[in-house]
Amino acid sequence: MDFLREICGGIVPQSREHRDRAEAYIKTLTMPEWALGRLLDLAVDLAGMTGDLSLPVGRKEVILMAGDHGIVRQMVSPQKSDVTLQMVHNFVRGGAGINALAGAAGARISVVDMGVAGDLSELAASGKIIDRRIAPGTKDFSLESAMTREEAVRSVETGMKLVLERAGETDVFATGEMGIGNTSPATAILTILAGESDPAKFVGPGAGLPPEKLAHKAAVIRRGLEINRPDPKDPLDILAKVGGFEIGGIAGVVLGSAYCRKPVLVDGFISTAGALLAAQFAPAAAEYMILAHGSAEPGHAKMAELLGKKPLLDLNLRLGEGTGAALAMPLLDAASAVMNKMATFDNAGVTVEGIR
Amino acid sequence: MDFLREICGGIVPQSREHRDRAEAYIKTLTMPEWALGRLLDLAVDLAGMTGDLSLPVGRKEVILMAGDHGIVRQMVSPQKSDVTLQMVHNFVRGGAGINALAGAAGARISVVDMGVAGDLSELAASGKIIDRRIAPGTKDFSLESAMTREEAVRSVETGMKLVLERAGETDVFATGEMGIGNTSPATAILTILAGESDPAKFVGPGAGLPPEKLAHKAAVIRRGLEINRPDPKDPLDILAKVGGFEIGGIAGVVLGSAYCRKPVLVDGFISTAGALLAAQFAPAAAEYMILAHGSAEPGHAKMAELLGKKPLLDLNLRLGEGTGAALAMPLLDAASAVMNKMATFDNAGVTVEGIR
Repeated sequence: MDFLREICGGIVPQSREHRDRAEAYIKTLTMPEWALGRLLDLAVDLAGMTGDLSLPVGRKEVILMAGDHGIVRQMVSPQKSDVTLQMVHNFVRGGAGINALAGAAGARISVVDMGVAGDLSELAASGKIIDRRIAPGTKDFSLESAMTREEAVRSVETGMKLVLERAGETDVFATGEMGIGNTSPATAILTILAGESDPAKFVGPGAGLPPEKLAHKAAVIRRGLEINRPDPKDPLDILAKVGGFEIGGIAGVVLGSAYCRKPVLVDGFISTAGALLAAQFAPAAAEYMILAHGSAEPGHAKMAELLGKKPLLDLNLRLGEGTGAALAMPLLDAASAVMNKMATFDNAGVTVEGIR
Repeated sequence: MDFLREICGGIVPQSREHRDRAEAYIKTLTMPEWALGRLLDLAVDLAGMTGDLSLPVGRKEVILMAGDHGIVRQMVSPQKSDVTLQMVHNFVRGGAGINALAGAAGARISVVDMGVAGDLSELAASGKIIDRRIAPGTKDFSLESAMTREEAVRSVETGMKLVLERAGETDVFATGEMGIGNTSPATAILTILAGESDPAKFVGPGAGLPPEKLAHKAAVIRRGLEINRPDPKDPLDILAKVGGFEIGGIAGVVLGSAYCRKPVLVDGFISTAGALLAAQFAPAAAEYMILAHGSAEPGHAKMAELLGKKPLLDLNLRLGEGTGAALAMPLLDAASAVMNKMATFDNAGVTVEGIR
């Protein structure tokens, strides 16, 4: 807990000076003013995060956190928890969506067992996954607290430590997750932080729940909120009562990235739930988040609104794993290329009055 | 003209068979059904265009067409035509936005002089640009026809030929342009093809015209339409009377790509005006167009609507040069990676009933 407090206390806002310098430099580049729109906003953000006008974003890593959820016993998901374990094997063999897309983006993937309900010891022993398992899945939060407060602390600190260990070899972190049933805790977290009492307006199909079962899913989540009554002002209480191990881990990855002044690409609905918690732990952490894409899950737009951010991409994704974060990575490289490769009006002999 | 007719007549719709096969194959991949949303729609499109389920998109080329416009004499742009020439030099030296972004995407750039008002003979002689100049800029279309019908044919055929010459070494073409004043002909083309008589609702700032001058710009374009009365059913008549050499060239690049069954990434407002003309020449050509991004220019949304397409990116760009097309290129690589790298439920041992 001291570690968690120390990291949160060490998170500083973006560098205003580097933002201003980046903005001034961009205005000297050979194009009409701000003609690359949001790509230039991203460049300014990256300069403010990293404190470096060359925007170091080359080395990218997806921290892919897996965990299971007791709530699946309530039939809130069409899948069984087995699939979490099967998909971890798929990640290790390179056959999942995130493998294809991180590969295309030139990003590494680290698969972390935060609490999968199954035996992954062989993969951990051979170094193919990182074993940080807290328990074989959370408890069913419609009946009791998903985890203890100590486990919640441990999940967040795990994410922080993973980032700090890797910060020397990674410029940009990206969040990813796998956990059958995890749209339910994510929806619960959103409901609390949006100041609502009924999750019905945010509940969605996740990986494919049929429309006729959405009301049941909302009722289960609502029961979990009523039984647990998480304190909206206390992110650890929210995480412990209705969260998940991988969601806590993601909050930790976001906080660790912010502490290291590194950009963190936040993937979809589950990841943004983790990011919302991170912003509760340390509001300045939000200045290091880049929302990669607008998820197809209906609550995601509200999450983006709460963070005051507009996602970079809008491709109707609902896979998770960090796939949307991987798809957004080339935009960071593009922003960096603009800062490093474009000529200025002066050195290109282009008429400033003309083009501006 | 025979060549133009031959190419247009040789454009066939996407392969329905390859679309169906791609869709069926995607449904066997280890993810919830269609969980990568529009990326999968893109994959199906690319399969239908290329007739190849491996989606060959590796070798990309931006055909960057430059031309000047007599209409700038009417003060419809804050820049003078000099800037077109200056920017061609900037492209050749590698300092423009498109150089940075095509570089980041691994795409080649071919700069084509379609009709720049200035001397580019040295760059052409040294092979740094491709000389296909038709005239030193179009005529002022608010007073007379922008070009002759023969010149219009030549501009389109030039784009077609460039693609046919390169088809053996390029998998994906992208359109780009540079031409001070070219939002005016693009707006005129849109106004006609939208069945409107007043360009005011589509007119925008282009590279930075102040808001108080937009009404003047609209009036100049309206005068051009009234004087020339282009036949909305005849794309050559539209191009000749109110178009531009680089816009005709872009129409040709789109038609040539469709003829070769290659995807063509259509950049912003000007490029989409060329694409709209291409769809008039051969409606099936639209099946090979990928709208890269939604431009900040207000008329662009109507262009996308006329083509029945939703742009991939929405980043508030208004630079042209092919920059938005370059930014969208990694999404094509990502679609290809999904088709080539992901495991199926069968070979990954993931429970189909579970995850679907």
